[in-house]
Amino acid sequence: MRMVDIIERKRDGETLTNDEIRFFIDGYTRGEIPDYQASSFAMATLFRGMNKEEIATLTDSMMHSGDVIDLSSIKGVKVDKHSTGGVGDKTSLALGPLVAACGAKVAKMSGRGLGHTGGTLDKMESIPGMRIELTEEEFINQVNSIGIAIMGQTKKLVPADKKLYALRDVTGTVESIPLIASSIMSKKLASGSDSILLDVKFGRGAFMKTFDSAKTLAETMVEIGDSLKRDTRAIITDMNQPLGLAVGNALEVKEAIDTLNGHGPKDFVELVRNAGSIMLQQAGIAKDMDEGFEMIDNAIENRSGLEKLKAMVKAQGGDESYISNPEQFPVAKNIIEIKAVDAGYIERIDSLEIGLSAMRLGAGRETMADKIDMSAGIVLSKKVGDKVEIGDILAYAHTNHDNFASEVADIRHAFSISHETVSTNPIIHAYIKK
Amino acid sequence: MRMVDIIERKRDGETLTNDEIRFFIDGYTRGEIPDYQASSFAMATLFRGMNKEEIATLTDSMMHSGDVIDLSSIKGVKVDKHSTGGVGDKTSLALGPLVAACGAKVAKMSGRGLGHTGGTLDKMESIPGMRIELTEEEFINQVNSIGIAIMGQTKKLVPADKKLYALRDVTGTVESIPLIASSIMSKKLASGSDSILLDVKFGRGAFMKTFDSAKTLAETMVEIGDSLKRDTRAIITDMNQPLGLAVGNALEVKEAIDTLNGHGPKDFVELVRNAGSIMLQQAGIAKDMDEGFEMIDNAIENRSGLEKLKAMVKAQGGDESYISNPEQFPVAKNIIEIKAVDAGYIERIDSLEIGLSAMRLGAGRETMADKIDMSAGIVLSKKVGDKVEIGDILAYAHTNHDNFASEVADIRHAFSISHETVSTNPIIHAYIKK
Repeated sequence: MRMVDIIERKRDGETLTNDEIRFFIDGYTRGEIPDYQASSFAMATLFRGMNKEEIATLTDSMMHSGDVIDLSSIKGVKVDKHSTGGVGDKTSLALGPLVAACGAKVAKMSGRGLGHTGGTLDKMESIPGMRIELTEEEFINQVNSIGIAIMGQTKKLVPADKKLYALRDVTGTVESIPLIASSIMSKKLASGSDSILLDVKFGRGAFMKTFDSAKTLAETMVEIGDSLKRDTRAIITDMNQPLGLAVGNALEVKEAIDTLNGHGPKDFVELVRNAGSIMLQQAGIAKDMDEGFEMIDNAIENRSGLEKLKAMVKAQGGDESYISNPEQFPVAKNIIEIKAVDAGYIERIDSLEIGLSAMRLGAGRETMADKIDMSAGIVLSKKVGDKVEIGDILAYAHTNHDNFASEVADIRHAFSISHETVSTNPIIHAYIKK
Repeated sequence: MRMVDIIERKRDGETLTNDEIRFFIDGYTRGEIPDYQASSFAMATLFRGMNKEEIATLTDSMMHSGDVIDLSSIKGVKVDKHSTGGVGDKTSLALGPLVAACGAKVAKMSGRGLGHTGGTLDKMESIPGMRIELTEEEFINQVNSIGIAIMGQTKKLVPADKKLYALRDVTGTVESIPLIASSIMSKKLASGSDSILLDVKFGRGAFMKTFDSAKTLAETMVEIGDSLKRDTRAIITDMNQPLGLAVGNALEVKEAIDTLNGHGPKDFVELVRNAGSIMLQQAGIAKDMDEGFEMIDNAIENRSGLEKLKAMVKAQGGDESYISNPEQFPVAKNIIEIKAVDAGYIERIDSLEIGLSAMRLGAGRETMADKIDMSAGIVLSKKVGDKVEIGDILAYAHTNHDNFASEVADIRHAFSISHETVSTNPIIHAYIKK
């Protein structure tokens, strides 16, 4: 078998055999197939696509390119959730503890932030002492004892994806549904959960720009999960404004704590209740959406979710007093009010612009080598649909930089104000399952 | 400027600017742009194509990626001819001396054979002593003194093409008209001729499989030449059977000598007369096709073409007595008759099969490291349209190998025999000029 023949067959729109796909992934992982063949193959795939079976085989080969975590020693149904990434997305920090409090087992591997999107690991590290590198044994023991653990992906998980993703990033081959879907799903499947809930976001600031492309990606991933025998479901959610109010690491942790205390922003609570209810159904704990909602609502009201977050922080070496007393989190030196210069109704808040501004204020990384300022970020005062008068505060910029004029201008610019009333959409646009 | 943006723009079907194309070629030549970006760019180009201006810029950038030969010190109009490669294509060895004998200046750089196609340089080296590496000065002086020189491409000619062609070969990106056209034309333009005649072959055994694809390539190259101010014309010729009768190095040189002695095979003579007449018009020596034909016919009849070949061989250190007495060329140990096992009319002679069989008999290379047996090859006794009886000799296989049964079977198999009469086509299917 020769890689050039496989490239040519895909280029000509033919369907690859399982052996051909495995030959590519195995050879590429071992370094026997060079980058220049992998990149032309990726470009041919971007143009020609793949059918369901090809995508399933690609995902399965990638999943098996490295370690596959065995969670069978954890009692109960393991549930996992994955977001395609957005701005202000602190969902795992509230949702994980809530579903764990309701009895599901949350064994989750997360990632770091890059560019305009944040990462759960970075957010967790704003809690002093918090360890995000656990051994497989520690991870399993923690889930067995308290029901939840969130750790960084091990280095040996899906090495094929690490290589391929870095390559796609510089060869114009990111935007291919089969490649995106197999990249996400191979990691989720390799981390060993019984069920997976995918949160596919769309809009400015999300990976997928339109509802339709998000739907195609979601359906493709649900299909992969189904063909590889995992209960996989997806929700498609709106990223045409940041999620909740806080953007930035400690700021988002505080918002997650507020939410577990019953004071979460409306859109974020809506997302957490829906995702939580679905995960509880996947775990076989709730029988339908309504029962799931009730359980999540209870776990907020009786603070069992909050207690679960404390337990997790403590188990992973973090200072749990920060969860009880979030005012301990460091606060940025400068907190700048950003005021409306026009009156009307908020029509849109450009998430990409907000995400990039937060990054430049210190909250994120432009490259993986950059260091994060945990206290930096943006807190919105207004959301889409809200009425504003001239001089009303739209948002606060938090930063330790002394030079923030351009970020302030960009944040103001991110708000589109209409002179007519604006109707708001539910945050969840679709729910996809087999 | 970033290469990934250029790749994405081409991927999305946009038109690249001149600066973007030059950035790619310059960066790739200098090794600043890696192979994996060049290959995904090539694949995007294969799918999206390029417009005339992009192709002209690509060709011009490639042409200037290395040395550009200055032939201005040669008096008279320099004519060049390029074939896209076929089986039995010894055209340069007869055509070059004929047009030089008529007063045109032939300063030609040629290549070596690979796979099923032969190369002019290898054929020339079957003449003892023949030097194919000349300095630029020797090359120019020889054309000035005797009107013709054929040498190997210098290593510094179009380095961008050397890198890109090797990459395309292993990344499934060979079959792209803009890339093929710019590859051929950049080399022809860099070798400095005033006019170029392209012989674009189609059929089994040719690079282009169909007349239509050959026509598109020919038109694209004529367009490039025109936009870069060189008189560029093309003929589209049939490769649905080998050209002439001889396939193999010394065997083809002997056939070229026969042709210059007035005993050439009909199809080969037809090609040489047409190409010769066009080149003499490009040189401003003949005013139309008929005058060109007459001049070429004269140069055959009065043996001035043959004398020109002798002069070139002598000037390049070769033993010119081989041209006067071709029976001196070494003859293979085994000459095997291949006989018809069916009666009828020859419908087709698979050039690819003949070319590959000749290669395996010793006449060619599978990889650039292989050595050539100058005496090996195939001589056809029948051509398309000929009537055959069972037991008639179809061809002779010449080889120094002792094991040739499979080649003999393949050669017999290359002949398709019909029970009805077969009409023959002219070898030249189209003539393209601006």
